[in-house]
Amino acid sequence: MGTEIERKFLVAGEGWRDAALGPGLRLRQGYLAHGGPAAPVVRVRLAGDHGFLTIKGPGLLARAEYEYAIPAADAEAMLATLCAPPVIDKTRSRVAHAGLVWEVDEFAGHLAGLVLAEVELPGAETPVTLPGWAGREVTDDPRYQNSHLARADGPPA
Amino acid sequence: MGTEIERKFLVAGEGWRDAALGPGLRLRQGYLAHGGPAAPVVRVRLAGDHGFLTIKGPGLLARAEYEYAIPAADAEAMLATLCAPPVIDKTRSRVAHAGLVWEVDEFAGHLAGLVLAEVELPGAETPVTLPGWAGREVTDDPRYQNSHLARADGPPA
Repeated sequence: MGTEIERKFLVAGEGWRDAALGPGLRLRQGYLAHGGPAAPVVRVRLAGDHGFLTIKGPGLLARAEYEYAIPAADAEAMLATLCAPPVIDKTRSRVAHAGLVWEVDEFAGHLAGLVLAEVELPGAETPVTLPGWAGREVTDDPRYQNSHLARADGPPA
Repeated sequence: MGTEIERKFLVAGEGWRDAALGPGLRLRQGYLAHGGPAAPVVRVRLAGDHGFLTIKGPGLLARAEYEYAIPAADAEAMLATLCAPPVIDKTRSRVAHAGLVWEVDEFAGHLAGLVLAEVELPGAETPVTLPGWAGREVTDDPRYQNSHLARADGPPA
């Protein structure tokens, strides 16, 4: 178990592409439980051809997280039959900036057009030098949680 | 992934104890998702000192099931912090009868007094010779699903 401290930003422009560390990884993920103010999120993810099952406690900035590798075939079957559609489909790139590695997610499918950047930090108060392509911060906006995006009609306005 | 075919009965009397195969195993389990007519169940279980995470598809008699071993410390922490209380606490005994092995669960805590027996079958139509201590069948009664019992005030009337 770890506690995840993440800050999340909208991405403005294409400047991040030049600093990307290699090609992106396709992620497909769905939810067995969408979570809520006091309820955990249970996520099924296919990352390339690796399957994962992840449990996240309630909260936005700092939350308990448990992740387990599972057979890719199990993840594929759960995404197809047990997760409420639509499944999130996005490509994740790792992008270096000022000594930190950011994750930039380009969404496809029902969320096409949305690009989000996340940075993981050792503590909630850790200072961060924002890259020029980081737009509005959405860490505290529940609409940008993936468990919410999975149920949205499209990118939040 | 397997598909589970199980029949479930109330237990009448103590006759099963003489046919028990060794001592019972204490199970403590809680739910990250309680499931519903179209929603999966996500269960955390401590079986003795072994942890498991189990996903069950919707349904009562035959349902998709995925089970993964997880660290006992993770299961303990999730039962304490992420599962909606109360946690189910029961002792499971394996009981032989007519060539099949039954599982008899004696509940404790908020469900004290309830004793249920389950038998797993290769198919829904497999004939079963019922033991004398098998009472009313409750396979199709959702009140006796553990995910429901976890939220009940006490044993179903």
